[in-house]
Amino acid sequence: MSFYSVNEAAAEIIENEVIPFADRLNIIVSVLENGATVLDMGIHAKGGFRAGKYFAEIGMGGLGRLNYMMMKAGGHLLPALQCVTEDPAVCEMASYVARTKVPWKGGVQVVSGPVRSILGSDDFARSVDYRDPSPRKAVCGVQCETLPDEELADGIARTCGIAPEDLYIMAARTGCMVGAVQVSARNVEQSLPTVYDRGFSMDRILEGNAVSPVICVCDDEDTAYGRVNDCLIYGQETNLTVRCEDADIEGMLEDIPFSKNTDVYGTPFEPLFARCGRSWANVPRDWDAPCRINFYNVKTGKVFSTGSVHEGVLVKGFLGEGGRIA
Amino acid sequence: MSFYSVNEAAAEIIENEVIPFADRLNIIVSVLENGATVLDMGIHAKGGFRAGKYFAEIGMGGLGRLNYMMMKAGGHLLPALQCVTEDPAVCEMASYVARTKVPWKGGVQVVSGPVRSILGSDDFARSVDYRDPSPRKAVCGVQCETLPDEELADGIARTCGIAPEDLYIMAARTGCMVGAVQVSARNVEQSLPTVYDRGFSMDRILEGNAVSPVICVCDDEDTAYGRVNDCLIYGQETNLTVRCEDADIEGMLEDIPFSKNTDVYGTPFEPLFARCGRSWANVPRDWDAPCRINFYNVKTGKVFSTGSVHEGVLVKGFLGEGGRIA
Amino acid sequence: MSFYSVNEAAAEIIENEVIPFADRLNIIVSVLENGATVLDMGIHAKGGFRAGKYFAEIGMGGLGRLNYMMMKAGGHLLPALQCVTEDPAVCEMASYVARTKVPWKGGVQVVSGPVRSILGSDDFARSVDYRDPSPRKAVCGVQCETLPDEELADGIARTCGIAPEDLYIMAARTGCMVGAVQVSARNVEQSLPTVYDRGFSMDRILEGNAVSPVICVCDDEDTAYGRVNDCLIYGQETNLTVRCEDADIEGMLEDIPFSKNTDVYGTPFEPLFARCGRSWANVPRDWDAPCRINFYNVKTGKVFSTGSVHEGVLVKGFLGEGGRIA
Repeated sequence: MSFYSVNEAAAEIIENEVIPFADRLNIIVSVLENGATVLDMGIHAKGGFRAGKYFAEIGMGGLGRLNYMMMKAGGHLLPALQCVTEDPAVCEMASYVARTKVPWKGGVQVVSGPVRSILGSDDFARSVDYRDPSPRKAVCGVQCETLPDEELADGIARTCGIAPEDLYIMAARTGCMVGAVQVSARNVEQSLPTVYDRGFSMDRILEGNAVSPVICVCDDEDTAYGRVNDCLIYGQETNLTVRCEDADIEGMLEDIPFSKNTDVYGTPFEPLFARCGRSWANVPRDWDAPCRINFYNVKTGKVFSTGSVHEGVLVKGFLGEGGRIA
Repeated sequence: MSFYSVNEAAAEIIENEVIPFADRLNIIVSVLENGATVLDMGIHAKGGFRAGKYFAEIGMGGLGRLNYMMMKAGGHLLPALQCVTEDPAVCEMASYVARTKVPWKGGVQVVSGPVRSILGSDDFARSVDYRDPSPRKAVCGVQCETLPDEELADGIARTCGIAPEDLYIMAARTGCMVGAVQVSARNVEQSLPTVYDRGFSMDRILEGNAVSPVICVCDDEDTAYGRVNDCLIYGQETNLTVRCEDADIEGMLEDIPFSKNTDVYGTPFEPLFARCGRSWANVPRDWDAPCRINFYNVKTGKVFSTGSVHEGVLVKGFLGEGGRIA
Repeated sequence: MSFYSVNEAAAEIIENEVIPFADRLNIIVSVLENGATVLDMGIHAKGGFRAGKYFAEIGMGGLGRLNYMMMKAGGHLLPALQCVTEDPAVCEMASYVARTKVPWKGGVQVVSGPVRSILGSDDFARSVDYRDPSPRKAVCGVQCETLPDEELADGIARTCGIAPEDLYIMAARTGCMVGAVQVSARNVEQSLPTVYDRGFSMDRILEGNAVSPVICVCDDEDTAYGRVNDCLIYGQETNLTVRCEDADIEGMLEDIPFSKNTDVYGTPFEPLFARCGRSWANVPRDWDAPCRINFYNVKTGKVFSTGSVHEGVLVKGFLGEGGRIA
């Protein structure tokens, strides 16, 4: 991995597979006055599953692959995503995680993607040794409701140590197919910060894959935001292949999954988030947790599982309030 | 989608991925005297799953993708197909649907594929605004037992407003792997004419995906014809993402699925078709219906489901009369 | 298939998709003094799932495709592989099967892959008519714990009738991801020798696909060796499309699956292999058997199934001795 550039790989996918097929992918490409290129994949653009797959695979710097599949929940066959990566730490912590904060419109916009790995722009990016050395282009993704502008592009460029004209910004709101896919695709990712916070070194993680559903996409941003988070905290099952002592896993096993929050487990995320004033600053750190992880320890050949999928919440989100089975 | 040519996309797949690998795909390519190119994918040729996947993806003008998967039915793991499309209306109604009728051998041959979208050669092709503007090449598919000849090629060319030398014709009988795959792949498609007939505008459908099994392929054309239709009316589950009023869905929900035919529901298609003298002219319109649809309404965030998979019929077709579990 | 070279196809994948991306695939490429090229995909190299997929698809001479999926066993979602091939006989018997024996380090190394099809270097390679005519390059795979050297390369070259400088050797031990994937990928393969031994001609097999799990990968070679074999004898379900008399299938149905070994069925492979002194020479031929096969007879439209998946053994191997569900 030493010579691999996640930004270069991401830029190549954008230039070879996305921009030339923008019409077919239902996305809109534009260039800002400061030279940054914006890919509207779900602000005004319609997007679609394939565009969402690109958002995620580009966001992972080409180190993860997304497949469409199905997942049974409560008798329903929910559309689902599988993510597979041979380099979970770099793919997720150095690249795909949404963590770098950039000022925008008087507030803060969280930025995800390969650009974070150039300087190591946040604590999660710095949790791995990998740094992307001066790539030709830099790539990031943002989940927002208005189109990125010069202010945001300048802010990202400044924060991440690049020139705005070298930047690609992918953007989609939450309540569209790209939004739903790019969040649900954070299924392997969802596991890593939690175990990192418990002192589990990222270089012990050899490989990762995960499945998570995509429950009903909807226009309403608050409802959509609740649902995409339900997919992660109630619907994601992650397999991590690790090499460590069994005790390193056993010591944190009970403390990992979202289900440990027994006071709120089973409540959809939307009312929980509303209770926090819809601000992550007020969300208890323990709520940002994986649903279920299986640790495969190659050193001992043992597997440790923690957490469980909550089909009831998924079906509720799948059907929506008032949905109906004829 | 305004600049996208389904025929051009289909021709590119044929020219770049199919014809150069004909030997490996077990198909036979020939040129008729009038210049039309015939791809025998299952008349005399053996074909195979990969050739069937090409038949379907080419027939969809490059707007749909087919994956191989598995489906549990009655304890058996049936081979199954998943189709995903971001443009169901154009992909299916303007392209893949088998609907344009062309005279052949004193009878009529039904033609499917992108060629239908040039003039809008039938009512389903005209259900969408999309028209493919003068592509370099035109592409179609036929399900038949004898190899397409000059008469058929001339007829298709005349009906669809192209020159025969610009035409690619893919052909396969029903009772071979390509036949089974290309019909089972009509799983998203199977839903659209039914809802269109009930006044549901095609431009409200944003995205579609579906799963359907491929039950035992067999040489006998009548048996095979029954089984491929069983896959659709008893085995297909379709997810449609739509934007509309909930009432637009609710008003037609009960009237959509094949299961509403309570007098015949549970009877395999073969005896039903025999009862109609094996002629679609005699088949009640309500029998050409989807098995199960989930409507995801992005406007309201609600899901509406109708119909149900009938595992008993699938297992019967899977095993065949006299098949045995040791 | 007459003009198709499995070695040429395999070499093209190695040259175009593997060697240029060695860094990203976590593999190590080196050239021996006799000119043979060694791809370390899991001896000293880390490898990964994608490298394992290449090992298998290259080993099948480009005639089979591998997909990652999931398989439910005892409430657990096990990572699993699906293999699909339109030419099972050539893909497996002439190419992927590990059967050609070559002297190495005073013992014998079993060799798999396309190189076997040049001369027909063993009885399984000779079970099909196909011979690969003088390809530019030859390709093979070995499952071993030390890196292939000049002695092994010379031995393979001599046995298979090629020059060592024209040889690519892929190598991985059993207890790594590539090892686990390349063995589990032998799921369609696992069925063929058994039915061949019972007089079922390989040219009657038209198409094949199968699913098998990948249970916990581990460093210990003996444990790993047991587990990868458990995936095949207790976890693989194969679909074979055939054209023959029903009696040809029925006559061997009871005699095929591993479950016919009623005295040992349910015991993991590792203790069984230990009982045989860890030597295949002492393993009863009936133990090298498929888990479950469904025969789809296109001639009669009937399906015959034999054998069954043993979830208990899979879950035991998945969790490992002392693994834990929190």
